[in-house]
Amino acid sequence: MTELLKAREYKKEQLKELLLRIHRGESVEKLKEEFRQVLSGISPLEIPIIEQELVKEGISAKDIAKMCDLHVELFREAVKGTDELEEKDLPDGHPLKTLYQENKEILKDAEILNLYAKTLATTKDERMREEILGVLEEIVGNLRKIGSTHYNREEMLIFPYIERRGLTAIATVLWTKHDEIRFMIKYLAELLRKRSEMPWEEFVERFKAKAGEAAFALSDMVFRENNIFYPTLKALLSEGEWKAIRMQEKEAGFYKVNPPAWDPGEDVKPLHPWEINPELSVEQLLSLPKEVQGALRGQPLEFDRSKLKREGDIDLGTGYLNLKELKAIFEALPVDVTFIDRDDRVRFFSPGERIFERTLSVLGRPVQLCHPPKSVHIVNKILQAFKEGRKREATFWLRLGEKYVYIRYVPLFDENGEYMGTLEITMDIAPYKAIEGEKRLLDWRD
Amino acid sequence: MTELLKAREYKKEQLKELLLRIHRGESVEKLKEEFRQVLSGISPLEIPIIEQELVKEGISAKDIAKMCDLHVELFREAVKGTDELEEKDLPDGHPLKTLYQENKEILKDAEILNLYAKTLATTKDERMREEILGVLEEIVGNLRKIGSTHYNREEMLIFPYIERRGLTAIATVLWTKHDEIRFMIKYLAELLRKRSEMPWEEFVERFKAKAGEAAFALSDMVFRENNIFYPTLKALLSEGEWKAIRMQEKEAGFYKVNPPAWDPGEDVKPLHPWEINPELSVEQLLSLPKEVQGALRGQPLEFDRSKLKREGDIDLGTGYLNLKELKAIFEALPVDVTFIDRDDRVRFFSPGERIFERTLSVLGRPVQLCHPPKSVHIVNKILQAFKEGRKREATFWLRLGEKYVYIRYVPLFDENGEYMGTLEITMDIAPYKAIEGEKRLLDWRD
Repeated sequence: MTELLKAREYKKEQLKELLLRIHRGESVEKLKEEFRQVLSGISPLEIPIIEQELVKEGISAKDIAKMCDLHVELFREAVKGTDELEEKDLPDGHPLKTLYQENKEILKDAEILNLYAKTLATTKDERMREEILGVLEEIVGNLRKIGSTHYNREEMLIFPYIERRGLTAIATVLWTKHDEIRFMIKYLAELLRKRSEMPWEEFVERFKAKAGEAAFALSDMVFRENNIFYPTLKALLSEGEWKAIRMQEKEAGFYKVNPPAWDPGEDVKPLHPWEINPELSVEQLLSLPKEVQGALRGQPLEFDRSKLKREGDIDLGTGYLNLKELKAIFEALPVDVTFIDRDDRVRFFSPGERIFERTLSVLGRPVQLCHPPKSVHIVNKILQAFKEGRKREATFWLRLGEKYVYIRYVPLFDENGEYMGTLEITMDIAPYKAIEGEKRLLDWRD
Repeated sequence: MTELLKAREYKKEQLKELLLRIHRGESVEKLKEEFRQVLSGISPLEIPIIEQELVKEGISAKDIAKMCDLHVELFREAVKGTDELEEKDLPDGHPLKTLYQENKEILKDAEILNLYAKTLATTKDERMREEILGVLEEIVGNLRKIGSTHYNREEMLIFPYIERRGLTAIATVLWTKHDEIRFMIKYLAELLRKRSEMPWEEFVERFKAKAGEAAFALSDMVFRENNIFYPTLKALLSEGEWKAIRMQEKEAGFYKVNPPAWDPGEDVKPLHPWEINPELSVEQLLSLPKEVQGALRGQPLEFDRSKLKREGDIDLGTGYLNLKELKAIFEALPVDVTFIDRDDRVRFFSPGERIFERTLSVLGRPVQLCHPPKSVHIVNKILQAFKEGRKREATFWLRLGEKYVYIRYVPLFDENGEYMGTLEITMDIAPYKAIEGEKRLLDWRD
């Protein structure tokens, strides 16, 4: 027996002892300190292995479930140690601190998943099984959100900053692994949903195995991120970059944390990926984690220096377009639009083939004169309701030969709530009504 | 008997004589000159009245149908006289000349409608009836196009020029009458379609009466336009205005004429309604038709001097928007768009609530890095097919919770066929799939 295994055996015996004392009724709170001592020095990744052995040796699932909260708390503390160095000098609300905090939650939930999956496998009582299945459904449902929050924020908000600096490989590898994890968790959810379609033993064995794999992959990702990705970010990203990231984090949301506002100061300008200087200084290079330095060795860094804003571009707030592109976009839209301004005059219509033709003569024309006189009173009523804020849309639909025309009027307001005008949107919905089933990107054939 | 009736009686007798000679087999071509003499001096509007009397007196419908082409040609010549004064100094392809020419076609077709409707009423032979009904269906089908071409061009292209000059009443009255005529012709089409649902006698009497009304209204409109509206246009519109109109006429199309190109000269700048000086000179006022002068008496002309282009507006070719309006329009669109430029970099996404969230970090990012690594090869294949012109779109659809997401990629090209980039359009089509029936403007309730 190796030293490592001997040490683990010893810890296991101690843990077993403590669990038995909980079973006999001793106060969980009182035992906390002893748990802490037992767990100190073990890698958090070893805990599930030890637990698994305990379950094998007959500690009841019920007892393990009972100590779950305590265990999680201790586990969290154990994990804390490893990141403390990185995290301690970060202010609350700093995006990097938030990432570390989420990773603790993820590690904890991965652990809980594994624990409950094993508990389920050893539970004989029917009612108990149902109870555990209910908990597992909740856990798996939660875990699915990791992909849409924590991973998504990294992929969408943060990767662009390291890609610009030529570190695209890190981004690609992490994203590939994120997707594998997303798939694993989705698979667990499906397995839970289809459990009645297979024998119990088959289900529970498969679930336990897959939950174990998912828990391992989740934990593994936490360690990759905490030890490689986040230190890289820390070495490279400036306050302005973190400020820009912080400003957009809410869009994707967070995993089980709720970071406070954070602003490095009014004098710090938020920096978007296309605004940074992507070159790495020697100092930055040397402060990168060893693994990253190793990966970069022997190949030139391909800094991405492409400029986003070109001469004459229109700054739309969410991008830069030249006039030609802007016109082409309006022409390619699958909807036709016509805009009348606050004075009811036609100010713009989208070009190209339209359901209801428009010619340049219509520009500047009061909308009341653009309609058959018979229906003008309705047009006026709708506009009045819009201007008074009583209605936020008016929709109509009618058949026109092969077309099923859907017309939507919406009032537009500026940031002060001032009425700016009304947009008419017209589209043929017949093709959409005919669509069935699914056709996904991976179904595409050249 | 009044002189007028006596003269009509005389003409009628002469016409009858000519028709009998056709019946006996004389050459239509040979009789043309004699017809012309008979018809000269009769108002074109009298012709249907005379024909109606001939039918009553027993001239067979077959014979009247036989002379139809000749009649139409002569009728056209007769009509020509009345407009010749206005039309003769206009060059071919001039929009005003085209309007006059269309009116001749309209007058002729109104006449034919009336003639055939009456012929139908006196026809006993079943096969003959079916034949005439077939012709009537074609005639009515043709007449419906008057609304979408001739009237539509006036309403959309030409009215704005007189509205700017304060002559809104003319436009409103004409449009109201256009709509009445549209309704009459639509009614005739419906009547023809539903003819088997009522007794023959009821159908044919109703049809004859309604066809007579429609023919009268169509002719009446021709005379209103030729005698009031067109002379008004002639007095007011400059070459630049006609040039702008000519440039846009094709959009709506023409009624049975095919005008050649016309350009008053390269030095003449096309003038859109919002670019003209709307004030009337005394000279212009005096050259207006008496009826228009009369209508304008006693009220000040309300010239429309509103400016279309404001300080800082973006000229989109089909209108002028400021940045705030442009952003609000993109936000209000029922589709989300993302644009990647010719270098595959994300350049713009539409703001606001989206199906697939986008953050500013994505700007400038190569699209290949915005996708899960697993599907990047498909993205590249699609883009390659777009750039090589092998595909003009790629569409996908999938369920996402309550949403039925439809995604469409389209390549954009500039006027020289150069690839400018690709637009991603995303929309939830679930609401459209649920739409049934119709809801029209007049159904709107406040």
